[in-house]
Amino acid sequence: MPEKIGTVAIVGVGLIGGSFALALKKAKLVECVIGIGRRQSSIDAALKLGVVDQGATDMAATRAADMVLLAMPVGQMESTMRALVPCLSAKTIVTDAGSTKADVVACARDHLGAALPRFVPAHPIAGAEQSGVEAARADLYRDRNVILTPLPETDPAAAQIVGELWRSCGARVSNMSPETHDQVFGAVSHLPHLVAYALVNMLARRPNGAELLSFAGAGFRDFTRIASSSPEMWRDIALANRSVLQSELSDLQQQLDRLRELLGSGDGAAVERIFSDARAARQDWLKRKGYAQE
Amino acid sequence: MPEKIGTVAIVGVGLIGGSFALALKKAKLVECVIGIGRRQSSIDAALKLGVVDQGATDMAATRAADMVLLAMPVGQMESTMRALVPCLSAKTIVTDAGSTKADVVACARDHLGAALPRFVPAHPIAGAEQSGVEAARADLYRDRNVILTPLPETDPAAAQIVGELWRSCGARVSNMSPETHDQVFGAVSHLPHLVAYALVNMLARRPNGAELLSFAGAGFRDFTRIASSSPEMWRDIALANRSVLQSELSDLQQQLDRLRELLGSGDGAAVERIFSDARAARQDWLKRKGYAQE
Repeated sequence: MPEKIGTVAIVGVGLIGGSFALALKKAKLVECVIGIGRRQSSIDAALKLGVVDQGATDMAATRAADMVLLAMPVGQMESTMRALVPCLSAKTIVTDAGSTKADVVACARDHLGAALPRFVPAHPIAGAEQSGVEAARADLYRDRNVILTPLPETDPAAAQIVGELWRSCGARVSNMSPETHDQVFGAVSHLPHLVAYALVNMLARRPNGAELLSFAGAGFRDFTRIASSSPEMWRDIALANRSVLQSELSDLQQQLDRLRELLGSGDGAAVERIFSDARAARQDWLKRKGYAQE
Repeated sequence: MPEKIGTVAIVGVGLIGGSFALALKKAKLVECVIGIGRRQSSIDAALKLGVVDQGATDMAATRAADMVLLAMPVGQMESTMRALVPCLSAKTIVTDAGSTKADVVACARDHLGAALPRFVPAHPIAGAEQSGVEAARADLYRDRNVILTPLPETDPAAAQIVGELWRSCGARVSNMSPETHDQVFGAVSHLPHLVAYALVNMLARRPNGAELLSFAGAGFRDFTRIASSSPEMWRDIALANRSVLQSELSDLQQQLDRLRELLGSGDGAAVERIFSDARAARQDWLKRKGYAQE
């Protein structure tokens, strides 16, 4: 049973920060949640929904916090850390929910100063297609992965507290280096998002785009679901993880080159092998993940 | 109310052919359904499920049919038409359910001879992720698109009968040229399938593929759902529609080139514009299609 944490400040009370607050409240592990946001309207919504107990638009409100969760899009990390640092007590633990980690860690090294050992970089893998505090729910993290990417300097006690709080939200917690994290999620998450956005955009912009899309069906709907994700959040992720993504895009383009060549030469056996290997790998993956077979 | 058709022969009794049979039976528009397949085991399954009334592994069984539906993978179209032609009566209507149309039409021109005017090329858009007669159901085509691609030579009466039968299955029927059909579905269906297969294959084959995939979540599951489709069927589609697909792959690669450049130059505004245009187009599309907003 993790120790109770007194006051948690959540900077950016959307789906991710709001669901963390609700899960901690449900587990009775927090005494007070302070929501901090750019817009008073978001804070008001979070207060009204009972997601936070107090609200503020000023970072000074973090002074009272035992732990601060940074849950804004990663593009706002630098300005947020700059504003946060003068408000931190000597004991405050800082963690984040950023979708990329190497850039957040670099930012922390640049700006957190003496507070760096109490910073525990983290990424809860959940709910990227939705957004807003209205979508927040206490069980969002049940059986979801949360990746911690602690630094050599990170205080092990701080990392342990953050890990236990996430576990108490129902999450599976694992550790990686920030670089490995960005490579893994660059491949299995960021790359598919870029491809889905690019494909929808390509078809929609054609002169006959509306006619084309009128014949698109359920397969297209599922393939492009992630293209309905927040453009602002994914712009930040794409830029933050750009070197991994440039390499992943090149790799995928090579695969598409190969397919184009095989179509050109009419090599049905090789095409079928690519398709059947992919299908077998995916069916195996569904089984391992405990997803229903499709 | 369409006229009743006497005997329908279904060549290839899987999801598509089986569901057509069940829908016609439910609408009481058919007296007898003969199932014809390569494997006796498939025929036995279709008989046991009540999808067909008679079964055969020999094309001669089509002699008794008023209409023949060719519902095998498009790669088997040529050999099937060759075997079919000597068995056709002077009145038998022939239609198909092939996922590509220009190649099927070319094949019909090469092989159907005097029966060509009674051939009505068609493509019901449904259920490509599933397969097998066990998945067949009478309502598969409700509110789904069926595209007819009649030829200049096609007997209008034959086209009308085929269209009415599909409408009686609950489908929305529209007409296109075979070339337009292949362009439209090359863009909105075949291309996404190729990309999904290529991406799964690329990641699964890496030395750390299993670790990568262990962190893939719901977004990846939806994006890659179509990579669980039948490799044989999609090999045939990819080859049959290869010239359209080579051009679509090139177009997509250009979009990915552009994204790579924008990431390289750190042009966040342009990246966000691509993402937000795609998101807006997709949300609009969901609304037009009557799909739930996501």
